[in-house]
Amino acid sequence: MEVIESINNTKVKHWKKLHTKKGRENVGQFLIEGIHLIEEALKAHLPIKELIVEADKEIPPEWRVSEVPQVYVTRRVLNEISETETPQGFIAICDLPDNKNLPLEDGKFLFIDGVQDPGNVGAMIRTADAAGLSGVVMGEGSVDSFNGKVIRATQGSLFHLPVQRMNLLDAVQLCKENNIPVFGTSLEGSTYNAIEPQEHFALIMGNEGSGVNPTLLAQCDQNLYIPIHGKAESLNVGIAAGILLYHLRG
Amino acid sequence: MEVIESINNTKVKHWKKLHTKKGRENVGQFLIEGIHLIEEALKAHLPIKELIVEADKEIPPEWRVSEVPQVYVTRRVLNEISETETPQGFIAICDLPDNKNLPLEDGKFLFIDGVQDPGNVGAMIRTADAAGLSGVVMGEGSVDSFNGKVIRATQGSLFHLPVQRMNLLDAVQLCKENNIPVFGTSLEGSTYNAIEPQEHFALIMGNEGSGVNPTLLAQCDQNLYIPIHGKAESLNVGIAAGILLYHLRG
Repeated sequence: MEVIESINNTKVKHWKKLHTKKGRENVGQFLIEGIHLIEEALKAHLPIKELIVEADKEIPPEWRVSEVPQVYVTRRVLNEISETETPQGFIAICDLPDNKNLPLEDGKFLFIDGVQDPGNVGAMIRTADAAGLSGVVMGEGSVDSFNGKVIRATQGSLFHLPVQRMNLLDAVQLCKENNIPVFGTSLEGSTYNAIEPQEHFALIMGNEGSGVNPTLLAQCDQNLYIPIHGKAESLNVGIAAGILLYHLRG
Repeated sequence: MEVIESINNTKVKHWKKLHTKKGRENVGQFLIEGIHLIEEALKAHLPIKELIVEADKEIPPEWRVSEVPQVYVTRRVLNEISETETPQGFIAICDLPDNKNLPLEDGKFLFIDGVQDPGNVGAMIRTADAAGLSGVVMGEGSVDSFNGKVIRATQGSLFHLPVQRMNLLDAVQLCKENNIPVFGTSLEGSTYNAIEPQEHFALIMGNEGSGVNPTLLAQCDQNLYIPIHGKAESLNVGIAAGILLYHLRG
């Protein structure tokens, strides 16, 4: 068994490129770290291109990945490729999915406009999955959904429903053509629980500091607001998304 | 102006003790970092014992803290005391509040049982504030609410409503004596939106992995469950708390 021992190995340098959005897009691949997430990717039939394994670890037989190229590395090399503090010994390399055809014809959607924190974006994708949404659209200003921290915060939900990058003005326009009501979120909106649950909808959540882009808000059918009853200035955007999605889906 | 330049200074060693729960409890003080949080503490009339200031920074005059002892330190010393990556130049030392008398007689309460992640606990306190709750009770197994990461995630809400550490079985008992219905959260519970909004209630949220302690669940008037409509295994505990609190308060 050959084991990569040098962090200057060409393969190691290639994998490390996948830590940045630019690198992922140039190469067309992304990293999946850890046992639970790799199992979620396998369940979702994501094609794994290469499996990086720490030299003393055994691949769980139930993964049935004997046909996937396997590369063994030392702990030091694994730490170099890993983006977590305590790597679990397995990293999968996957092709970026080509889900450019999320149909905005009917269904329930979450649009994410300029949300920066990977934990927030990941939690929102996880909540969209839990709420049974049809898909998530990531606007151009949001953190990349194939960022390692985002993937970990989705707890695998990234592999459960379509998550597509798209210009949000275009996405709103498509919803309008298909009679899907679009709800923005704004302090100047209506109280959310005055709205009935909806069979089809798109909900737009905005940046942690500045909220949804005003140009987008102007295109929405209605803007919603969660009342603050205490002294907090606002809610966390992921928590606000949870309250609104579960209310709107009914 | 005297400036502390050595990280071995006695005062610096004292302040660093406040990074741990044990240290905070021994000393009876905690740290508040950053401009926004210090302003929130001042607004809430928290007595600041000492203000640590980076040597080249000017204290905003609107803080009106001329009577608070001020200690100037170099950037290097500030970095040593700080728990953030990019300290803003100000750290306040406060006495731990002695809020041992949160009355569980009437009102709306969040009970936190064994939640470990500081970001989750902080977000839950922020949400409890936003939802206009009367107070939060931290069970013995949860992360300390005066942990720096918790304080930052509350965005100042820690200073807006009583947050008290207490044995949760005792807290549930007090609620029962005062006819406050107690709702646990459990996969074996009722669907949350079958419950009407409540004027008085206590909601118990549990550990990220294992949920609410079964002994506590057995004492609850009713246990609630948020349906999962997609393929996610669960919701983030902070997001689940948001959905339930906003539903129960109506």
